[in-house]
Parts: sequence; C-alpha cells; structure tokens
Amino acid sequence: MKSNNLTCPIPFNENERITMAHGGGGKAMQKLIDSCIIETFDNQYLNEKNDSSVLPITNNKIAFTTDSFVIKPIFFPGGDIGSLAVIGTVNDLAVSGAEPRYISAAFIIEEGFLINDLFRIVKSMYETARKVGVEIVTGDTKVVEKGHGDGIYINTTGIGEFNITDLPSSKKIQEGDKIIINGDIARHGMAVMAAREGLEFESTIESDCEELSTIIKKLLDEGIRIHCMRDLTRGGLVSGLVEVIQQTNLSCIIEENKIFVKDEVNAACEILGLDPLYVANEGKFVMIIHQDDENKALKILHESNSGKHAVTIGQVAKTNPGNVLIKNFLGVTRYLEMINGEQLPRIC
Amino acid sequence: MKSNNLTCPIPFNENERITMAHGGGGKAMQKLIDSCIIETFDNQYLNEKNDSSVLPITNNKIAFTTDSFVIKPIFFPGGDIGSLAVIGTVNDLAVSGAEPRYISAAFIIEEGFLINDLFRIVKSMYETARKVGVEIVTGDTKVVEKGHGDGIYINTTGIGEFNITDLPSSKKIQEGDKIIINGDIARHGMAVMAAREGLEFESTIESDCEELSTIIKKLLDEGIRIHCMRDLTRGGLVSGLVEVIQQTNLSCIIEENKIFVKDEVNAACEILGLDPLYVANEGKFVMIIHQDDENKALKILHESNSGKHAVTIGQVAKTNPGNVLIKNFLGVTRYLEMINGEQLPRIC
Repeated sequence: MKSNNLTCPIPFNENERITMAHGGGGKAMQKLIDSCIIETFDNQYLNEKNDSSVLPITNNKIAFTTDSFVIKPIFFPGGDIGSLAVIGTVNDLAVSGAEPRYISAAFIIEEGFLINDLFRIVKSMYETARKVGVEIVTGDTKVVEKGHGDGIYINTTGIGEFNITDLPSSKKIQEGDKIIINGDIARHGMAVMAAREGLEFESTIESDCEELSTIIKKLLDEGIRIHCMRDLTRGGLVSGLVEVIQQTNLSCIIEENKIFVKDEVNAACEILGLDPLYVANEGKFVMIIHQDDENKALKILHESNSGKHAVTIGQVAKTNPGNVLIKNFLGVTRYLEMINGEQLPRIC
Repeated sequence: MKSNNLTCPIPFNENERITMAHGGGGKAMQKLIDSCIIETFDNQYLNEKNDSSVLPITNNKIAFTTDSFVIKPIFFPGGDIGSLAVIGTVNDLAVSGAEPRYISAAFIIEEGFLINDLFRIVKSMYETARKVGVEIVTGDTKVVEKGHGDGIYINTTGIGEFNITDLPSSKKIQEGDKIIINGDIARHGMAVMAAREGLEFESTIESDCEELSTIIKKLLDEGIRIHCMRDLTRGGLVSGLVEVIQQTNLSCIIEENKIFVKDEVNAACEILGLDPLYVANEGKFVMIIHQDDENKALKILHESNSGKHAVTIGQVAKTNPGNVLIKNFLGVTRYLEMINGEQLPRIC
C-alpha cells in the first residue's frame, strides 16, 4: 500500500467550499474525488477508477447491508458522521455473523459545504475502516443546492463473508436462552442530542460509537452458541429486542436493575423526557445465547474493550409469546412496546 | 413468490405525508417499511427483516458499485427516480462485464413527502428490477426535516457476478479498436431539463433511461471481444471517453457526423446553450472492441431494442495519446476536453 495523503495538504484553500460544479461529472468533480477521496481511501480497487469495483470473494454466502447517515451535528463527542458511517455498516454485518470485508461510500453534499470538513470526514472514514480491517472500494459524489441538504449525508453499503455455516437467526432462539448486552446504554443518542441542544453536564457525554466485529468474531471463534444478535441503534434496546422476539413464539424477560445507564446520560434523558431503553447506541449489541455458554461468553466479553461491562440482562421464556417484559426494582413486571413515533430525530 | 400488493391499497390515506416519526425506528417506521416497501419488493432475503441479507454467490469474483440519485424532478418523461435508481446501478455493473444480481435501496425522505409518491417510486423500482432480473434485497429509510432535502433521495448499491474471466479494462484497449455507441445521445439530460424548466417542444423529449445488462450479456455471450465499456451518464459521451483514454497511451478519434442527436434534443440544447456531447444519457454506452468484431457486434446490437440505432463513431489511434479528438463535418479535427464545471445540475 502506498502512503496516503493524511498529512499532506489537499489542493484546495482552507476556506474553499463545495459548488454545484463538484457534482457535475467534469474536471472539478474529478479533482475533488481524486485528491480528497481516492487518495485518502487508497486501495487497489478504488484506484482502478471504474464505475464498479471487482472484488475477490472466498465464500459462497455473503452478507449485504445498507445505511444512510443523516446525523446532526456531523461532528459530536466520540465520533463524527464519517466514523459512524463505517461503524454502523460494519456492525450490521457483524451481528449477522459475517466478517466485514468491503464498503461503498456515497456522499450527498450540500452546496457551500467546507471542503476541509469533507476531507476531515473522509479521513475519519479511512482511519475507522483501517482499524476494522474493511476497505472502502467504490463510491459516488452528488451535490445538491443550498437549502436541499444539511451539510453532508453519507450512505455506506457493506459486504461481509461468512466463515461459519450455522448462522445466527431468530429461528434458533429457545426457552432458557440468556440475553447479554455488552455495556451501558443510551450514550450515543444522548451525546448527539446534548451536542445539538447545547446541554452541558459535569462531564461531556461521549458517544459509544465502536465497531463490534472484532469481539463478535472472537465469540464465534470460541464456539459460543449465539442464537441471535442485534445492534441497538435507532429505537434502542427495546426496539432491538421486540424486532427479534416478534419473529418467534417466545418472550424476552429482562431485569431493570441489570441495565446500566451512566449518571450524566440519565440526567440528559430526564431533561429531554426520554426513556434510555429506547435511546440509540452505536457500540452496543444484545446477543441471545445458549444458556450453558453464559459464563464463557461473559468471560470473553470482559477481557475485551468493547465488552468489559457486559452483563446478562435477562432470558427467553415461553409465557407471553412475541413480547418483551421488564421486571423493575420492585419486582413488578410490565410489557415493553416499540415506540410509536420519533423519539430522537437524526441521531444516525 | 407470493403475490405482492401492487394493486392493493397500502394502509395510508391518499394525502398522508411522511413525518419525522417515519424515520424514528419505532412502530410508524415499521408500518411504513413493512407495508410500502418490503411488501412491494417481496423476496425471501428482504422478508427475513434482518439488518443484513444473506446472499448466495456462485463465483469468486464480484462487481460492486454505488450511486445516489438526487434527480429533480423525481417524475419525468421516460422514467422516475425509482426506475432510474435501479437502471443506473444495473448499468454500472453491466459495463464492468458483470451480470447484475442484487441491489440495496436506501431512502432519504424529506418530511412532508406524499406517502403515495413514495409508493409509486417503490413500485417503479420493483417493476424495473423484475424486468432486469435483479432483486432488491436490503434497505434503509431515513427522514430529514422539511427544508433539509428535496422530496426524496435514493441510494442504490449493486452486486454483480462475473461469468467471464477476461474482464473488460482500459488496459486492453489497442490501436485500431472500434468505438461503438448504441444510439442517439443527450436525451436523458434534456428530458429532465425540459421537464424542470417547463420547456415545450412539438414532441415531448423522453429520457433514454434503459437497462443495458441484457444486450451486454448477449454481446459477451456471442464472443465479441469488448476491450472496454462505459455507460454515458454525468458528463455525457465526452467525459466517458476521456475517463477511459486517460488511463492509456492511446487516443480516441470520433466523427461528428456519426453521432446522432434527435431534433428536439438539439433544439433544447441550443435554448440552454449546451453541447449534446456533454449531456447525460441513461441508456447509452460506448464499447471499444477489437476491430475484427465490428460487423458482428453491430448486427447483434441492431437486432436488440436498446441497440437498434447502434453505430461506429470512431476508432482508437496512437497519435495524441490520452486525448479524445473529434473530426467535424468539414473534416477539421479538434480536441475534446472534460468540462470544468457543472453543465447540468441534478440530472441523476
């Protein structure tokens, strides 16, 4: 791999902004894409500069997922739209049991956007992808007039390969399975809302934005019988669990006192009138595993950075099929439903 | 395949509009996606409702491409943003020599957009995909506030498989190769501009929006030695040729009197001060082929719908390496350069 221009200046002035010409298919677009994007992402597939990239695949089953990112603000404590766009798609692949391999990056940029900010985002994507071990192999750039976007929107679409044959699926969930989460919840949503609304707390709320493919690979490699996984993004912990359990004739029973929410996150939730159980995360997943593997799974998680606060929050039962129930501090059990409306707009 | 709801009413009122809640990860979003999108696209992969789709691949080399569509207006003579989003990505795969297999669909919808219009677009995507033989297997929906979008933006990302081993590439271009185009140019760009600006002509200009994978497969199956292909979207014929020939030590010499532009398209170009050589197409490609295969290739093209007006427009030479030259009606030759700025904003 040749060195890329992460430390070199790009051929634009510091205050230069995106114009409609940067999306027009001519020289201006070519210069922007070549110097700011292809040079940074730098890999053999992208360097071919074809409309499609030609990619080797070693397996006859792949995972495929897409996500657009419209987060506001685009820079926030703990990440930015670039790192988020890579991590979001990588995590979707990882929870399906696949190892992330390739990612596409498509930008919709609003006229007037600072080219330096675009470059900062592209660098962040590159660095995140390198850390995870995925390559950004194809892309697209569109420009829309001022007033028809919001700085930048990014779509990433990912391809993963399966190195396991017995894939996680809601069909595999059975009574007695343990429900494990890899840490505290609601941090990403509240970090973004606090940054957007200018809320101040004793300590800044940082997004939990983190890739999950490394720890999931480890759990699978060690033979943990993971029946099903979900990353807990839009709609938070409850929506993730409801989505899964609705596809079965079983229920999830979780315990409120096992679910950890940081003090400043709780405070922010209270100010905004939000329930942390429904607030988005970007580095959290639940896994529903064979009950006999609980201790081994927790041990593996606790030895990792992204799972050091992992905990069993509940189990799968036969009563109340299709539902998620929560037992509170007083031992009272209630149903948890998917929220109807919008809890937090544009947090991913 | 179960029957889908193309003729059934979706569970929304005729004048119901997208709200921020439809992007929030809760019940409203689930209802929209289930009834309007998954029901329509209807396939086993999407029906699994997982974050990633699991797809079979029969080959160890795949093509991967992404495109966002921000076209304005979203409905235009000859197509709409939905058919365009499928065709654009299918054609990018096809010109790389791959057979399109799977597509993702990610929507960024502006608050206030008519749900009926969304449904119309989704149906158009489904019908186009079915015609081509690709499946829309994974998706995403985001909603942005009024004033931060323009109705709807769509990203499609595609996967194709190679059934040939010797892939088209600019590296294969050689002196004497013939340059063939499959019909008249500049129709898509002018159809969209005429619709946007309300220009009226004796006959409506229709976009040439058309899938190219079927005819390209035929040419490859018949053994035409295609050295390189490009679909002629943003930047038009010239940008496509310049992009390719810049990667070689050869030149393209094309003849103006071989390039066909319809009268009404020419008239629209004149009104807007545009050169049709640079105006976008959505159903046109150039192929640079071994000179001995010219007649056979033209015969195959002429028997097809998408190639019935195919013509050889020029050839590859050794002089002026890296350049595209055009010989005009008087026999005078001039250089053609990529345009610098934006000729037509938001035509794809």
